[in-house]
Amino acid sequence: MRYAIIGTGAIGGYYGARLAEAGHEVHFLFHSEYDAVVKNGLQVNSVNGDIHLSNVNAYNDVAKMPKCDAVIVAMKTTSERLLTEMLPHVCADGAVVSLFQNGLGYEEQVYEAIKDKVKNVTMTGGMAFICSSRTAPGVISHYDFGSVTLSPLNTPEADTEKVKLIVEQLKASNVPAKYDGNLKERRWNKLLWNIPYNGMCVILNTSTDKLMQDPSSRALIRDVMVEVTEGAAACGVPMAENAVDAMMKYTDSMTPYAPSMKLDFDNRREMEIQGIYTNPIIAARECGCHMKKVEMMEQQLRFIQAQYLGK
Amino acid sequence: MRYAIIGTGAIGGYYGARLAEAGHEVHFLFHSEYDAVVKNGLQVNSVNGDIHLSNVNAYNDVAKMPKCDAVIVAMKTTSERLLTEMLPHVCADGAVVSLFQNGLGYEEQVYEAIKDKVKNVTMTGGMAFICSSRTAPGVISHYDFGSVTLSPLNTPEADTEKVKLIVEQLKASNVPAKYDGNLKERRWNKLLWNIPYNGMCVILNTSTDKLMQDPSSRALIRDVMVEVTEGAAACGVPMAENAVDAMMKYTDSMTPYAPSMKLDFDNRREMEIQGIYTNPIIAARECGCHMKKVEMMEQQLRFIQAQYLGK
Repeated sequence: MRYAIIGTGAIGGYYGARLAEAGHEVHFLFHSEYDAVVKNGLQVNSVNGDIHLSNVNAYNDVAKMPKCDAVIVAMKTTSERLLTEMLPHVCADGAVVSLFQNGLGYEEQVYEAIKDKVKNVTMTGGMAFICSSRTAPGVISHYDFGSVTLSPLNTPEADTEKVKLIVEQLKASNVPAKYDGNLKERRWNKLLWNIPYNGMCVILNTSTDKLMQDPSSRALIRDVMVEVTEGAAACGVPMAENAVDAMMKYTDSMTPYAPSMKLDFDNRREMEIQGIYTNPIIAARECGCHMKKVEMMEQQLRFIQAQYLGK
Repeated sequence: MRYAIIGTGAIGGYYGARLAEAGHEVHFLFHSEYDAVVKNGLQVNSVNGDIHLSNVNAYNDVAKMPKCDAVIVAMKTTSERLLTEMLPHVCADGAVVSLFQNGLGYEEQVYEAIKDKVKNVTMTGGMAFICSSRTAPGVISHYDFGSVTLSPLNTPEADTEKVKLIVEQLKASNVPAKYDGNLKERRWNKLLWNIPYNGMCVILNTSTDKLMQDPSSRALIRDVMVEVTEGAAACGVPMAENAVDAMMKYTDSMTPYAPSMKLDFDNRREMEIQGIYTNPIIAARECGCHMKKVEMMEQQLRFIQAQYLGK
């Protein structure tokens, strides 16, 4: 298996470095950090053990990359149109493309865009559960967690055995990895956390722990979670009865944390509103469920973003 | 009719000054501006003609005020508990108490608190429609509008003729005043504007014109208005079919405006969340209508206020 990392940031860089450390051939696509990595290599400071890669297969242009069998996509979904142009350059026939991204509906969308250009592609969701950040060009700090779940999109050409092989190779690379057959369930499960916390930290300009401490915002977070479970159920993904309470309890136990959308907001970057809010709202609505508070978050987020991005 | 103004701010001061200008006996309760008014009088710079009162019946203690027949209350509802202690001092038997305040349910609440202490009190809502502000101690600037609608609470002792007399005296004092027999309808009608704009200007830290320009916030404002009409209808106050569109159109035509709650927020004062949000939410819910986006606004506002007030 030849690996490609498309978008070597805090997440793609971490998993790619783990695979390279274990001896796999990994090709990394960089953007602004390319020069620094060519010069200094890729450094991962990790709670699970540091990694330094001195000779990185680094690229700043996808057209220069070799065809790979396992393509891990860790770009923001705000560049998804760009992504569909890039993938045919780097995907071998029968490649497994794994979206280590947030939000609903991208596996379907990217699959539709590339299925005629990449023969026998297997589209896979990669639900990464990790706290890491870029601390300098070519330097990634990994603070906590680090597991990933791969779940293939159910298409005629999907090769689940190949996905399972990647899971095994990740596990052998010091990454707690899992295979899961129900992509929709895994995506909604991730939304159960992402929808309430990502947006509310932006709208109220705060952090997860403050949201959990105040009784009003705590009740609001819970209401939003309940709506997400209702939306999921309408879409055929019933959640466990205690899913909301378990997620609240889990967040209570977390180290205070700035979700990715809050970081995007703080740095005046485009936020992943489409995948985390708009797509789930549309999906639920099409199944007869109107998630009103989630919709209100989306409307507020789009207003907030328009004020600094003008779009 | 002997008048009292309880809370001589931008609104109480304006109407009191108009009545005094027309020759009525008006007694004004001041708080921090008492000394300035005793020294310099009360000045109103108004689009409808300036007023200067040099000998103001000014008080800084309600216990020193004479008993009055018409009591205009223009304090913030955040001091409503204080108000119910003050009123018996200044109300003559058979007094008409008019709440020139925002929010739902205060006429009932104040009536219950004072009915045994003020004989034959007539409790009245005063829906003032005015743009004015205090620009210096004892100086009020009146920019636009200025009408007021008086509507009595339906109680056994309510004397509607006396309310109509006050309306006539206001009209003769250069104030466009109206009598309306349906207090609940008037209150919900005012909420149709106050609920969407007051809170959203705080939550999104913006102004009414920006909310109307952006398509997402515009849709949100409309959704919230529709919920208010649903809540009103559940409470027995059906609104005209075009009420929402008319209110949107009206706001489009307005000069950009910082609602009172935005001013409270900017000055880190307590916001009128209870009357403008909590009471209507409870009233609608008791009638089987769950105003979800309005409830989300309340939750967000309570969080925001707790961050700066600690309550």
